[in-house]
Amino acid sequence: MIKPSDKALVPFVSVDNMMALVNHIGLEKILIDLASEIECDFKRWPLFDKSPRVASHSNVGVIELMPTSDGELYGFKYVNGHPKNTKKGLQTVTAFGLLADVNTGYPKLLSEMTLLTALRTAATSALVAKYLAPRNSKVMAMIGNGAQSEFQCIAFKAICGIEKVCLFDTDSNATQKAFLNLANYGLKVVKCKSSQEAILNADIITTCTADKQLATILTDNMVGAGVHINAIGGDCPGKTELHKDILLRSKIFVEYPAQTRIEGEIQQLNEDHPITEIWEVITGKSEGRTRDSQITLFDSVGFAIEDFSALKFLLTKIQDTNFFEKLDMLADPDDPRDLFGMLNRANTQ
Amino acid sequence: MIKPSDKALVPFVSVDNMMALVNHIGLEKILIDLASEIECDFKRWPLFDKSPRVASHSNVGVIELMPTSDGELYGFKYVNGHPKNTKKGLQTVTAFGLLADVNTGYPKLLSEMTLLTALRTAATSALVAKYLAPRNSKVMAMIGNGAQSEFQCIAFKAICGIEKVCLFDTDSNATQKAFLNLANYGLKVVKCKSSQEAILNADIITTCTADKQLATILTDNMVGAGVHINAIGGDCPGKTELHKDILLRSKIFVEYPAQTRIEGEIQQLNEDHPITEIWEVITGKSEGRTRDSQITLFDSVGFAIEDFSALKFLLTKIQDTNFFEKLDMLADPDDPRDLFGMLNRANTQ
Repeated sequence: MIKPSDKALVPFVSVDNMMALVNHIGLEKILIDLASEIECDFKRWPLFDKSPRVASHSNVGVIELMPTSDGELYGFKYVNGHPKNTKKGLQTVTAFGLLADVNTGYPKLLSEMTLLTALRTAATSALVAKYLAPRNSKVMAMIGNGAQSEFQCIAFKAICGIEKVCLFDTDSNATQKAFLNLANYGLKVVKCKSSQEAILNADIITTCTADKQLATILTDNMVGAGVHINAIGGDCPGKTELHKDILLRSKIFVEYPAQTRIEGEIQQLNEDHPITEIWEVITGKSEGRTRDSQITLFDSVGFAIEDFSALKFLLTKIQDTNFFEKLDMLADPDDPRDLFGMLNRANTQ
Repeated sequence: MIKPSDKALVPFVSVDNMMALVNHIGLEKILIDLASEIECDFKRWPLFDKSPRVASHSNVGVIELMPTSDGELYGFKYVNGHPKNTKKGLQTVTAFGLLADVNTGYPKLLSEMTLLTALRTAATSALVAKYLAPRNSKVMAMIGNGAQSEFQCIAFKAICGIEKVCLFDTDSNATQKAFLNLANYGLKVVKCKSSQEAILNADIITTCTADKQLATILTDNMVGAGVHINAIGGDCPGKTELHKDILLRSKIFVEYPAQTRIEGEIQQLNEDHPITEIWEVITGKSEGRTRDSQITLFDSVGFAIEDFSALKFLLTKIQDTNFFEKLDMLADPDDPRDLFGMLNRANTQ
């Protein structure tokens, strides 16, 4: 083969390299730095091209494309959500993403994003809680102990100073898994037998369950004054976690209203129910928590800008390292108009 | 590293492997088979999820995502269009695409699509001309001799029986390049000094130019009765090739009206100007050419289903071959809920 020129090669971060990079830098540091990157991009939120993700639904799941651009870089993520996958030994969510140069349209980075999504989701949750949760929050309830749960716990420790997490899952094996995984991270970890037990004395309640249904992970009477709820799992039409009455008692914060109205907990509410965009809290344009006794709710569905930030972050972190390969993904004829000639010449090699 | 399981590995067709595969099978055979695959999918057109592509425009170009699904497979293409790229030694259009299993959301194939797009565009053009062009068409004018032009010429030879192509480009170097590239394909190739000269006696006129502007590659007086126009280059808002008067004299065929109204030549016409969907001609639901003297116009912008067909075709062609690599793109923990544990264990390797 003719060796492709460097222009034609796209840096690719495999799962193996992503794990090596995270372990090389350290999980807590990655989460802290990633939260900073997301915070910076949230501060320039109006700059971005924004649209609800492009979803292809089937009766077993959803496949989505999540594009955005800041005018210099363009990014998108491919992500699926298939709750029944775990029964087949597959991930509920897998993802990969791409960053490209707006000026040329050429990709600059392709990466696995199953792990990176877990990191950016946890970093975003903790970043938002830094703005909304009660001051000096020390205890978090972690309801749903699936693939995302440990990342949430570590992020809240690293970014919000959480010292104790109370785990609950309807499947005690999941709780045991999370319990063991969190053993050496300096967190006090408690296994609970019910949601009620887990949220007793919690400053922050994180819900992260995966069933595609209108569920009621939390009922109204379970949630006391002053708590911050970080609701991760309600993230597509027909999939919610919280009883509507909780929403009606809370001050609700969202990423991108046009998407959250469709996918988030607030799909249970009227279209005109007041919400606050979280980027406005971060820039100081809007108020966050206004009373100690207020229930704040981050109705998180995950937005393209968070993935964009994560890919941009990754691109800087892999510079001058070996944590990537180069993929021969772009045709690169010597004369750009001579694609056909390149094909012809390859035949004579 | 722990070797990822086969579930986590995504077959990837690089540019180098794509060229090798095309040359192994033979360009004409690939184009014929690909046109058949597209024809089959056009016959089941109503089955597909269809939406206009998701475009991110800048002042120098566009980046687009083109998703579709037939309920079993999901496919999308990433493609850019940057007319000024050639001045930087870069391709105007680069692309890659992905095919995934709707039932699991897991990718089944990642592929370069710069070459594959050139192939599917040419195959689609020739397939459509097979239905619309005058019977026994032998001569094609090829206006615009850039990266797509030779693929068009070979496809029209292989699929429609074209024997002679008349090349014209405002840049004579482009014409010379195409002329040399087409030397050994059994076509009579003529270099012309003007569009007028090229289309004299042509049964089919293919226009394929790249400037992002409202251009007039053909004026009304140049186009005689009975010809078939295959208009490739007018494919985004503000980018057309034909004078409006030609459109008004032609019977117009399109891929997907909602997209073509935005991107095609017909953006120059009223929203309610009559058009015929080409899949209806292929299934016999609508008439194609109804008179010998009629001007038929395929206002082609390229639609996601063509890319879907091309990726599906490619997936069958690489089975049991070495024309692909396997990418470690999907996280694959032993317990699917234990993403965190996988990361932890990678640290101790």
